[in-house]
Amino acid sequence: MHTIGFDIGGTKIAAAVVDASGRELSEARRDTPDTWAETSAALHSALTELLHACPDAAAVGVGIAGLVDRSGYLSYGPNLPGIEHVDVQGELSRLFPLPVVVDNDANVAAYGEAKHGAIRGVDDALVVTLGTGIGGGLIIGGEVYRGGHGFAAEIGHITIDLDGPVCACGERGHWEALASGNALGRMGREAASEGRVPSVLAQAGGVVAAITGHEVGQAAAAGAPDALALIDEYADLVAVGLASLANILDPSVIVISGGIINLGDVLMRPARKHFIARIEAGTERPVPELVAAELGERAGVIGAAALARRSVA
Amino acid sequence: MHTIGFDIGGTKIAAAVVDASGRELSEARRDTPDTWAETSAALHSALTELLHACPDAAAVGVGIAGLVDRSGYLSYGPNLPGIEHVDVQGELSRLFPLPVVVDNDANVAAYGEAKHGAIRGVDDALVVTLGTGIGGGLIIGGEVYRGGHGFAAEIGHITIDLDGPVCACGERGHWEALASGNALGRMGREAASEGRVPSVLAQAGGVVAAITGHEVGQAAAAGAPDALALIDEYADLVAVGLASLANILDPSVIVISGGIINLGDVLMRPARKHFIARIEAGTERPVPELVAAELGERAGVIGAAALARRSVA
Repeated sequence: MHTIGFDIGGTKIAAAVVDASGRELSEARRDTPDTWAETSAALHSALTELLHACPDAAAVGVGIAGLVDRSGYLSYGPNLPGIEHVDVQGELSRLFPLPVVVDNDANVAAYGEAKHGAIRGVDDALVVTLGTGIGGGLIIGGEVYRGGHGFAAEIGHITIDLDGPVCACGERGHWEALASGNALGRMGREAASEGRVPSVLAQAGGVVAAITGHEVGQAAAAGAPDALALIDEYADLVAVGLASLANILDPSVIVISGGIINLGDVLMRPARKHFIARIEAGTERPVPELVAAELGERAGVIGAAALARRSVA
Repeated sequence: MHTIGFDIGGTKIAAAVVDASGRELSEARRDTPDTWAETSAALHSALTELLHACPDAAAVGVGIAGLVDRSGYLSYGPNLPGIEHVDVQGELSRLFPLPVVVDNDANVAAYGEAKHGAIRGVDDALVVTLGTGIGGGLIIGGEVYRGGHGFAAEIGHITIDLDGPVCACGERGHWEALASGNALGRMGREAASEGRVPSVLAQAGGVVAAITGHEVGQAAAAGAPDALALIDEYADLVAVGLASLANILDPSVIVISGGIINLGDVLMRPARKHFIARIEAGTERPVPELVAAELGERAGVIGAAALARRSVA
């Protein structure tokens, strides 16, 4: 059986036909439009394109950036201007000729890693995506855990610093504001303006405002001690949130995803060190394993297709 | 069927024979000794006493303050000096003439509320105990969720203030250090020494060092505006952690337990207000209900007996 997965992000829509092993057979892409009417039209056109390539697809799964309840209703989507208070699952079910299931994009990506990626066969796991913000998915008993109303795993929005910087959501000191990929860029710009990271500033052609997490990562990957020290500081902020989550959930495995994992051990080694130092009784007991994601940015599409498969199995 | 529950705390051991409806039929009490050898002897003597009163008890459940893995092994017990790295379940199984099951005391108390208290029949819930520290239990699918290794729900040990006061565990800025019942006492002493809470100071006979959470609560319950303002500040620190937990877990219900709930609406009303303000998109979606525990300090014994019942059912 083949199914189709959609991953609706703030700027792009990715879609693919996926087989039972998680392999993508045919792809489609669209830019994310500004209104729901245009978005549903774009989804319909992408679906038509994919069904032309693979007419026997049996169901559609959709991951969308925002708070989605158990019925597939999007109540809050700060990264999707013009799309809020929409019954996404209901409207797409009427529009599409196939069964449709909708969930939050981070839950869907976590399901992709659970079915076809880094945590295949693991019962209790947590997927943490360090990107523009921090997203996540909880895997309990091998399935996505959605909580009482469907809004679980908004893990970027935990307060770790009462007087910290303001988060995209308006609250102060959330983990996302301190340890996302974007936050690493801000740390790089602040350190550069204080003259602390010449190697990072050089990567950005001497322009402080041009520094993002990417430039910090490049300088660190090249071995510059000033950049490595900044990555160590950042890894500890990542570890603060990971340890809090581990103290609450005690997963067997924590998967780190997002573009930043291209740094490999430059990030993972200090993150593990700080994580073990910060988790409760870290030297007295088994602690969750920290691993890198396997599916990368395809986790959303592959997970959405897996969710569709599960819904019609 | 009758079962027996034990609740082993830092200072006292409570035990009782409990029936299928959660009613306690016969009780025993001991002080918690300083070594495991003395503790197991005290448990044995209490069990003998209870079996004399009720010879047909079928199993024993034990809640113990510390990190307990899935096999009932206590790896870490900072509140039980002399009891650490002990196979509690194995040793008591050899010592007792009945089947024994052991878990962390907060998990056991949460199970008590789930089976016989405030969250009977609720699938997804969280129990938060504000006492000397902050403990908790996660209820998922109506059962205690223990995570990959058994150490889940150490919810007091989440960082909410990077530069905050040092926690009993040694880490800085944990929720427990800022929002436990003990922390309310510290806030009262600090405010009193700054001359901000004359009503609280009066409750403590004018002695700053004599102020605990109890005196703050008494002054607030009597309606003193200075004490109510301090409770509001405290309720917001409670809400910071509750909102973080709700953003991660999205329970249907959050149960607040601990002696502090005797304050009733004096605490619960500001806690609800700050919780809704701090949870993500609190006005755009259904939020977890905040309720007071029903079983009080008996939740541990009743939950331990319910766990014993479950283990032999």
